[in-house]
Amino acid sequence: MPDSLLFMQRAIALSIEKMQQGCGGPFGAVIVKDGQVIAEGFNQVTSQNDPTAHAEISAIRQACQQLQTFDLHGCQLYTSCEPCPMCLSAICWARIDQVFYANTREDAARIGFDDAFFYQQVCAPIEQRTIPFTQIGRDQALNAFAQWQEKDDKVNY
Amino acid sequence: MPDSLLFMQRAIALSIEKMQQGCGGPFGAVIVKDGQVIAEGFNQVTSQNDPTAHAEISAIRQACQQLQTFDLHGCQLYTSCEPCPMCLSAICWARIDQVFYANTREDAARIGFDDAFFYQQVCAPIEQRTIPFTQIGRDQALNAFAQWQEKDDKVNY
Repeated sequence: MPDSLLFMQRAIALSIEKMQQGCGGPFGAVIVKDGQVIAEGFNQVTSQNDPTAHAEISAIRQACQQLQTFDLHGCQLYTSCEPCPMCLSAICWARIDQVFYANTREDAARIGFDDAFFYQQVCAPIEQRTIPFTQIGRDQALNAFAQWQEKDDKVNY
Repeated sequence: MPDSLLFMQRAIALSIEKMQQGCGGPFGAVIVKDGQVIAEGFNQVTSQNDPTAHAEISAIRQACQQLQTFDLHGCQLYTSCEPCPMCLSAICWARIDQVFYANTREDAARIGFDDAFFYQQVCAPIEQRTIPFTQIGRDQALNAFAQWQEKDDKVNY
C-alpha cells in the first residue's frame, strides 16, 4: 500500500476514534514531513468549546510546537475531509506544501457541515457580505502599521 | 465618544503594545457582548510558533473559554485590521454577529502582510489551486460520516 494511503488511513481512524469518544465532529488529520507523521489532529470544537479547533488547525498547531517553528514548508497535510475555508487559509499561512483529502465539502454538507456560506462570505466584496462589516478608527490603526515598519527587531512571517 | 470607537481604540492599543513587546505582528482585537469587553486578542504567531494565532482567532478562543461555549452569537468583534480569510471563516464558525475593522487588507499588504493569495486559493475551484490537492481514501472516510449520522449522543455545531 502506498504511504499516502497509510497516512490517510490514520487521519480517518482519528476521525472515527475521537468522534466516538465525544471530542467533536468526524474529522481527523495528520501532518507528514520526510515520510514521518509529525503531528495528529482531530476535531475538538464541542469538547473544548473552541470553534477553531478543527482537525487541520489542531494538527498545524501541534506540528509547529513539535518543530518549534511557525513555517511548515516541506510538510504535507492528510485530512479526512476537504478543508473548510478557515483551515485552507491556515494551510496557506503555515506554508504547507501539499494537501491530501478524502471526503469532499459536498459529502460534509450532506451530514450537516455546510460551509458554502463561508466560501460566499470570504469571496464576496466586504460591503456585500451577510455579516455586517463597518470600518472605524483607521487613522489611529495606521499608526500601528507605521510602528511595525520602523521596528528594527521584528520577526517577519 | 461612541462605545464602538472606544472598543476599537482598545484593539488598536493591543496591536501596538503587544507588537512592541515582540509577541508578533501589529494586530489586536476585542470581543464585546452586551456592551462589555469579554475577550482580548493579539497576534502571537512568531512568539508562540503558531501560524493560527492571529488576533481574531486568539480573541475568539478566549471569549469561548470565558463564556464556556463554542457559539458567540450576540457578540461583536473589533479588530485593528480587516480579518484575513482564516479569521473571517473563524468569525463565521463562531457565529459572531458583527465586525468592526480599522486598517484594510490593502493597508496590511503595504507593510508586508499580503493575503491576496489566500483569497485566491479559497475562492478557486479545488483543482485550480496553486497548492496541490489530491483526493484519496474517500470510500473509507465516508464510513466516518455514516457513523456520525448514526451517533445518538452527538453535539451538533
